[in-house]
Amino acid sequence: VEVVVVSDDGHTGAFDHLFTAAVRDGLGEEGYGSWRSIDEPDAVSLSFGFPYPESFPHEELVAAAEAVFEAEHDTALQYGGGDYADRLVETVAERERRRGIDCGPENVLLTNGATHAIDVVCHTFLERGDEVFVEAPTFMGSLKLFGNYGVEVTGFENDADGLRVDAVAAELERREDAGEATPKLLYTIPTFQNPTGTTLSRERRERLVELAEAHDFVVLEDDAYGALRYDGADLPPLAALDGSGRVVRTNTFSKTVAPGVRSGWVLGDEELLEEVTRMRAGGTNTFTQSVLGYYCTEGPFEENVAELRTRYAERRDHMLDCLEEHMPPAAEWTEPDGGFFVWVTLPEAVDTEELLPRAAEEGVTYLPGELFFPDDRGRNCLRLSFSHVSPGEMDRGVAALARATRSAMAGD
Amino acid sequence: VEVVVVSDDGHTGAFDHLFTAAVRDGLGEEGYGSWRSIDEPDAVSLSFGFPYPESFPHEELVAAAEAVFEAEHDTALQYGGGDYADRLVETVAERERRRGIDCGPENVLLTNGATHAIDVVCHTFLERGDEVFVEAPTFMGSLKLFGNYGVEVTGFENDADGLRVDAVAAELERREDAGEATPKLLYTIPTFQNPTGTTLSRERRERLVELAEAHDFVVLEDDAYGALRYDGADLPPLAALDGSGRVVRTNTFSKTVAPGVRSGWVLGDEELLEEVTRMRAGGTNTFTQSVLGYYCTEGPFEENVAELRTRYAERRDHMLDCLEEHMPPAAEWTEPDGGFFVWVTLPEAVDTEELLPRAAEEGVTYLPGELFFPDDRGRNCLRLSFSHVSPGEMDRGVAALARATRSAMAGD
Repeated sequence: VEVVVVSDDGHTGAFDHLFTAAVRDGLGEEGYGSWRSIDEPDAVSLSFGFPYPESFPHEELVAAAEAVFEAEHDTALQYGGGDYADRLVETVAERERRRGIDCGPENVLLTNGATHAIDVVCHTFLERGDEVFVEAPTFMGSLKLFGNYGVEVTGFENDADGLRVDAVAAELERREDAGEATPKLLYTIPTFQNPTGTTLSRERRERLVELAEAHDFVVLEDDAYGALRYDGADLPPLAALDGSGRVVRTNTFSKTVAPGVRSGWVLGDEELLEEVTRMRAGGTNTFTQSVLGYYCTEGPFEENVAELRTRYAERRDHMLDCLEEHMPPAAEWTEPDGGFFVWVTLPEAVDTEELLPRAAEEGVTYLPGELFFPDDRGRNCLRLSFSHVSPGEMDRGVAALARATRSAMAGD
Repeated sequence: VEVVVVSDDGHTGAFDHLFTAAVRDGLGEEGYGSWRSIDEPDAVSLSFGFPYPESFPHEELVAAAEAVFEAEHDTALQYGGGDYADRLVETVAERERRRGIDCGPENVLLTNGATHAIDVVCHTFLERGDEVFVEAPTFMGSLKLFGNYGVEVTGFENDADGLRVDAVAAELERREDAGEATPKLLYTIPTFQNPTGTTLSRERRERLVELAEAHDFVVLEDDAYGALRYDGADLPPLAALDGSGRVVRTNTFSKTVAPGVRSGWVLGDEELLEEVTRMRAGGTNTFTQSVLGYYCTEGPFEENVAELRTRYAERRDHMLDCLEEHMPPAAEWTEPDGGFFVWVTLPEAVDTEELLPRAAEEGVTYLPGELFFPDDRGRNCLRLSFSHVSPGEMDRGVAALARATRSAMAGD
């Protein structure tokens, strides 16, 4: 008789010894996307970076599919795809050149979305025991992903000008003086950061690229929100300032077309990209890529992105107005020039994870701050998304958050 | 002045020390898909497992996209997708149940194609230094993929009844007696194997599943061709014979819909799948999944697969006729009951990689046998695909192969 001990969550452990060490380390932890459970059906969700549904270019994509299949009957659905899939690569390179990056199609590797892009870069560089530097807070999905590789993650503070590059420099110098190991990779979202909405200053960008070369690490620049600027002038991406090939850049069409098209890319030095390509393995979705290739070159992609900027700017403004109107004076929040998010800091005594059930009862959900930290910071912070809900819902949601906050502050 | 040594292929090595050990081991090796360079534009390509272009359901997919967007305006392109993406999961589970596997939607994880499915299983189980058992020959893409994880690959012979499970059993017993390590994973394509076209017998299937339990390894069952049977009765998949949850199964719509839809799945024990899901990270393509969900449940998917079986059976028959007609008596080949491939064995003295340029000159390309082995076997073998070219081209291609073979045998 074999006795299998089943834990409360149904985990028998029958296969545990066969998993990698990184998987075993994470057993019992919730995986990528587990934060989805935070939404309550009756509450206004300010939780997720979902585009608003009216933004999806349904008709344009159907028209693109028809045109592509008409033109590329033999190749669009075949391995490797046809000319429109190639055009997508060229369009990506051309748009990146407009951002000031010296690149061509040979520097672009299409992926199944931004997380897949980050994943293949991790697969190329990271082994168990390696270390990654990040902004703290940073995108919770990337933190989960780094966990899959069994690496240490060290977080550095953000301020209104983004990552405190001076703190990174000081730590690198301290370590080198002490003969300690420096990290292999620094992951950053320099523009309209997730979750804070802040943007890394020009000066810090230049300094960060210098540090990468001086201290021999790779910078992974996640630019998922970079195309969605509502105020001010574009700053050069890190990849545009880099002369050493150490900046690897990832991006996605999830915010400029739709999450469902699940298409992104890695941009990098050709020699480095060769190895990333090798580690990607398998093909990508030429159906979607062809449709996007058509939509981006012969469809109204640029006009639609311009429209998105206008609409998201209105939402951003409305979110800031709602916060100003409803929140208690002790609360603070960021004022992003682009992207989807506002980062709210409540008084130290308020724990945003403990607050969440009460907030949901009042009629709103959000993501608690601690999800975005590799350590236990951020407990009095939370992320709000202004991308998804209607202005009226936003108003109701922020009012509910304010009520919950006031009652927590009052010690109710 | 910094001196950078550039090798003949332009590789400077500037980043080599930052790559993982597995990437460093593979530097200079060609990556996934490098076999694509084997085609010559003027020759008939019998190289690749490409579906024939007339098989692509263009109109059905456009109609599906229209219907899905009409019904799911808010969700089809959003993170997570809508009902049609869910229906795809249910359809997969239902089709797998019809194959005799006890499963539901909770056992299915959608992926970006079969190679992605195999990749996430590898990511969950394999670390540098682990070992994988495979059939030899086996799918060259999977061999490349295993290389990305820095594992040892040990190949066991195939015969007309598939993998020599007796040889696997003997090696496992020998190792346990000698106190040597046994592998963590055995990768197999039991049905219409790539590249040989052979099918594992019922008896060997049962024995293999017993071995996995007795010797504590996971079986990765790649069933990419399983739906395309032209003769005989279906055999139960390994997953249908397994009572221990040790069989993880991967599959794809690349051969039953089109490669461009880049959609596949992992099927497995729920507890095990939880960790595979965690290692997948990131979303999948809900645009394509919704379109497939519609096409598979309300579109003519089943009828089209039945039609594919008829058309591929004709192609398989024609390929065997061509071989019979043209090839010298010293050549041997497999006679597959399904799938896309015939495996040809030439006399020992003929090296199929050396033969390839001459064959291309005569007017045909194929994949040399050694691509499919983890070691240096297979030099007198080659794979032919009957899936892609027209019957007339197939005839010309096999005639060209026969001419090249005869002249190599004659020592020209």
